[in-house]
Amino acid sequence: MAHKFEERIHSMVDSLLEDYSHGRTIDRTVAFEQPDREKIIEMIYQLRNIIYPGYFKNDRFKVYTVRNNISMLLEDIIFNLSRQTALVLPYSQEYENASPDELTARAEQLTFAFLDTLPQIRDYIETDVQAAFEGDPAAFNKDEIIFSYPGLFAILVNRIAHELHLLGIPLIPRIMTEYAHSETGIDIHPGATIGRYFFIDHGTGIVIGETTEIGNNVKIYQGVTLGALSTRGGQLLKNKKRHPTIEDNVTIYSGASILGGETVIGKNAVIGGNAFITKSVPEGAKVSIKNPELRFNYDKKQKELEQDEHWFYII
Amino acid sequence: MAHKFEERIHSMVDSLLEDYSHGRTIDRTVAFEQPDREKIIEMIYQLRNIIYPGYFKNDRFKVYTVRNNISMLLEDIIFNLSRQTALVLPYSQEYENASPDELTARAEQLTFAFLDTLPQIRDYIETDVQAAFEGDPAAFNKDEIIFSYPGLFAILVNRIAHELHLLGIPLIPRIMTEYAHSETGIDIHPGATIGRYFFIDHGTGIVIGETTEIGNNVKIYQGVTLGALSTRGGQLLKNKKRHPTIEDNVTIYSGASILGGETVIGKNAVIGGNAFITKSVPEGAKVSIKNPELRFNYDKKQKELEQDEHWFYII
Amino acid sequence: MAHKFEERIHSMVDSLLEDYSHGRTIDRTVAFEQPDREKIIEMIYQLRNIIYPGYFKNDRFKVYTVRNNISMLLEDIIFNLSRQTALVLPYSQEYENASPDELTARAEQLTFAFLDTLPQIRDYIETDVQAAFEGDPAAFNKDEIIFSYPGLFAILVNRIAHELHLLGIPLIPRIMTEYAHSETGIDIHPGATIGRYFFIDHGTGIVIGETTEIGNNVKIYQGVTLGALSTRGGQLLKNKKRHPTIEDNVTIYSGASILGGETVIGKNAVIGGNAFITKSVPEGAKVSIKNPELRFNYDKKQKELEQDEHWFYII
Repeated sequence: MAHKFEERIHSMVDSLLEDYSHGRTIDRTVAFEQPDREKIIEMIYQLRNIIYPGYFKNDRFKVYTVRNNISMLLEDIIFNLSRQTALVLPYSQEYENASPDELTARAEQLTFAFLDTLPQIRDYIETDVQAAFEGDPAAFNKDEIIFSYPGLFAILVNRIAHELHLLGIPLIPRIMTEYAHSETGIDIHPGATIGRYFFIDHGTGIVIGETTEIGNNVKIYQGVTLGALSTRGGQLLKNKKRHPTIEDNVTIYSGASILGGETVIGKNAVIGGNAFITKSVPEGAKVSIKNPELRFNYDKKQKELEQDEHWFYII
Repeated sequence: MAHKFEERIHSMVDSLLEDYSHGRTIDRTVAFEQPDREKIIEMIYQLRNIIYPGYFKNDRFKVYTVRNNISMLLEDIIFNLSRQTALVLPYSQEYENASPDELTARAEQLTFAFLDTLPQIRDYIETDVQAAFEGDPAAFNKDEIIFSYPGLFAILVNRIAHELHLLGIPLIPRIMTEYAHSETGIDIHPGATIGRYFFIDHGTGIVIGETTEIGNNVKIYQGVTLGALSTRGGQLLKNKKRHPTIEDNVTIYSGASILGGETVIGKNAVIGGNAFITKSVPEGAKVSIKNPELRFNYDKKQKELEQDEHWFYII
Repeated sequence: MAHKFEERIHSMVDSLLEDYSHGRTIDRTVAFEQPDREKIIEMIYQLRNIIYPGYFKNDRFKVYTVRNNISMLLEDIIFNLSRQTALVLPYSQEYENASPDELTARAEQLTFAFLDTLPQIRDYIETDVQAAFEGDPAAFNKDEIIFSYPGLFAILVNRIAHELHLLGIPLIPRIMTEYAHSETGIDIHPGATIGRYFFIDHGTGIVIGETTEIGNNVKIYQGVTLGALSTRGGQLLKNKKRHPTIEDNVTIYSGASILGGETVIGKNAVIGGNAFITKSVPEGAKVSIKNPELRFNYDKKQKELEQDEHWFYII
């Protein structure tokens, strides 16, 4: 005897299949040739285990020598990254019509080209750990930073994704940085270029746009936007420099917004909290806002205060 | 021989059991009849695999035809959603005293009623993907949006949770949207009504309250609050319209707050960054704030600046 | 025959091993004696199952009596917490040169000392659930708060981590609170002291610094910073009170910043949205900002508006 829901499920499947036939973007039905988001995220953690070899346990391999451990991690990464890269290359105009063999060959080439950048990524990350330790009195020691700071994790993922982005690999870098965004609240586009000794404190709410350029020894606090002035142009603005340039030794305090592709913050400048900047700032300038005047009130009842147009609650 | 800690653990368990007997909210001890948060979150991903059939791998079933895949996903969802719904229905006054059979029957009915809304959810989501692609020059293509944009994920979960909410199912919708909040930093209450072509960029820090109504073709950037003016009333304000109405084609730039249940933002209006709005805005208006004046300083030493009441750092 | 990549992987491993020999912070290669981040995070969930015994399923043990369930959870926690504590104690100057036996003995002592605080943690958490229910008209009931509110999760993790912090256990508390930060967007340092009936609504973007003191019955909304005035001193400022004191019954609305170690917000004060406060506020004061003036425009074309220095979009 058929289960009571059998007919109903059957007809529901029919109507979904019909709905999938409209040819919309979301109607694609073959998942087997799509990149695998889970594998791409797993690679972040495998790369982290190569970049900081002694901090995070490797649950996959119980090997006791560093050489064997690194060797097996590398094999895994080469296998996964070549495979995922071969799957995404056709998204790029250049490879739209490439044969499977060409895709595989090119993906392997790109994978090794990426792996060649690991020593440089490690070199930069060491400086980021140093910058976090020097900049944050709440940091107990450098191991605490490596184990727990979301800012360092977001920077690590950007440094990995940025190299993949420079090699012209589509989708994978953005999947990586949006994963870091979801883990940290820090949204750095893989296109952003970031110098040595970069320090992000707290970090939630930070947005760093695609064409941003950041020098060495820059510090950024929570809620900072390095953004565009308008995106009304939408896809027409693609590839145009829309985001600011931040020179060496600049500090940007929490809640500040710096906007526009022609905006340059000169060396050693300090941008105060909540400042809103759409024009260039010269070297060495210290910029602050005149904070909105405070109004104090003791006598009015809560109800009267709520009638007062300057007495607002946000919730 | 007893382990050295045996006695100690024994007496600790005793004192915890005694502590559980106080009858407080947190003292409940039977977990077997509670909804299962993990299952509810798993359903989000199963529903996503039905809504975008070709984007995310289904780790559970290795089936090679779309029909079989969808069919097995649907069976799983029907089983889980009916079961979880039957567990939460007693939270609703209407079903407080329903018999187990009545709960099961009602839960199955609600499950099928929800599944009937899937084609409409898919129809709306297609428009959201389109809106994100048109609105964001950093979007490489539509697949990148589906694979990686947190804003689209938050909207997807709201569209699912909102239908469950409309059917009067308690707890499950909120568990879903708070999960999306945790993944994206975007906090949309399941009660909020959202039209077609909705685009959220970056998204971290967005709050959209329970009684918000949003028209078609609306764009919202990071840090926007669509909130209430005060919740001092607490539970007394339940079910009152406390959050704003946003009409068609409105754009709200980052950091803006729009507050209050009687506040209506008219068609085609544009709300500039950081604006703080508690009164209605007419159709077509472009509203911006006079940004706080900037103060530049080059000569003062850092120490003197810190004495200056207008020279603030936030960290 | 060797695989085509064999030689290449071999030489890549050689160059990584060479790179690991530079003696930098990130060059450590022995992962076996490091704390295990995954275990530390697992303990949060095990402790949650003891604190709210009847809300979240315990996937590990299928035991049917509360006594057995709690007993097995406690054994697990004692095993894991002693082990992880013994691994991190050497980070503390006091135990730098302790023998393995001394570390184990001390770790067990600290573990039991921590477990003794569980009834007090439960006592406080009950008041936090109550405060959330009373303060939020969107809360359907108290179970919804326990199942889904990110603010409550962040407070729970702070209450656990704060006790471990008071016992002088390094690293573990911060790994816990940064995990909660990543799950909720709420960044509370384990050093912060928080009274009873604490309510956080929405929460994304909240930062509460290491030396903050918060009284009873305090409410805080999204985007609030309880921060320091400057950290230019970096490590020199360690252990100095750098963050504010918030007395009983204070409400702080969204986006407000309260900064500095000498800043005290007196009892019953209300701090309005977006206020920026660096001086003490007396008891009972209601502080609001004069919100920036709004400019309305209907006629100018979008293009002209973009020339206007007061007409900004942030993205």
